[in-house]
Amino acid sequence: MAAYIPCMPRFTHPRLDDVPLDLALHALADENRLGMVARLAAAERLSCTDAAPCDTIPKSTLSNHLKLLRAAGLIQTTQAGREMINTLRRAEFDQRFPGLLAAVLANRPA
Amino acid sequence: MAAYIPCMPRFTHPRLDDVPLDLALHALADENRLGMVARLAAAERLSCTDAAPCDTIPKSTLSNHLKLLRAAGLIQTTQAGREMINTLRRAEFDQRFPGLLAAVLANRPA
Repeated sequence: MAAYIPCMPRFTHPRLDDVPLDLALHALADENRLGMVARLAAAERLSCTDAAPCDTIPKSTLSNHLKLLRAAGLIQTTQAGREMINTLRRAEFDQRFPGLLAAVLANRPA
Repeated sequence: MAAYIPCMPRFTHPRLDDVPLDLALHALADENRLGMVARLAAAERLSCTDAAPCDTIPKSTLSNHLKLLRAAGLIQTTQAGREMINTLRRAEFDQRFPGLLAAVLANRPA
């Protein structure tokens, strides 16, 4: 019989109802994070490295960006083997803040 | 003949073309500033005191909020006698970032 080992989840994700508008806007108010969200909106799922705004970004900075995006209810990070996979919580975010992400992404410079 | 006295304008306002999206979002990513923008969207023009989020806000904090809103191209401040009058640069902002302000204001809690 396999032993049951309780463990804390690796990442925590807020309920969208608990995310205030100013926190969501703060998460989006950064060129790098906005680029990451745009990339995640285009792809279905991205590893942390693939979601990174550039190759030279320090790992701690990338971690912090991902943490802020998670806290704003924008992304979900799950562990898949040795990789961390990120997905956009698009449907949930759109339900909480209708039209907001679409307006932000539409106004992002190409 | 009235003497011509050159003077610096009391406040400077950016061209909307020079305002990046992240700066605009940063200005809106604050409950107090968002409240001020909402109030200015409803009224045509407001003095700094009337635009304030609350009566007890320190003058320096209020000044800073107004400065950030000006820098993001969201408001225009003009001197009218001894009063400073603020107006929302709604048409210009909407032209620069179509749909953004509407989406943000629509998602603001009542």
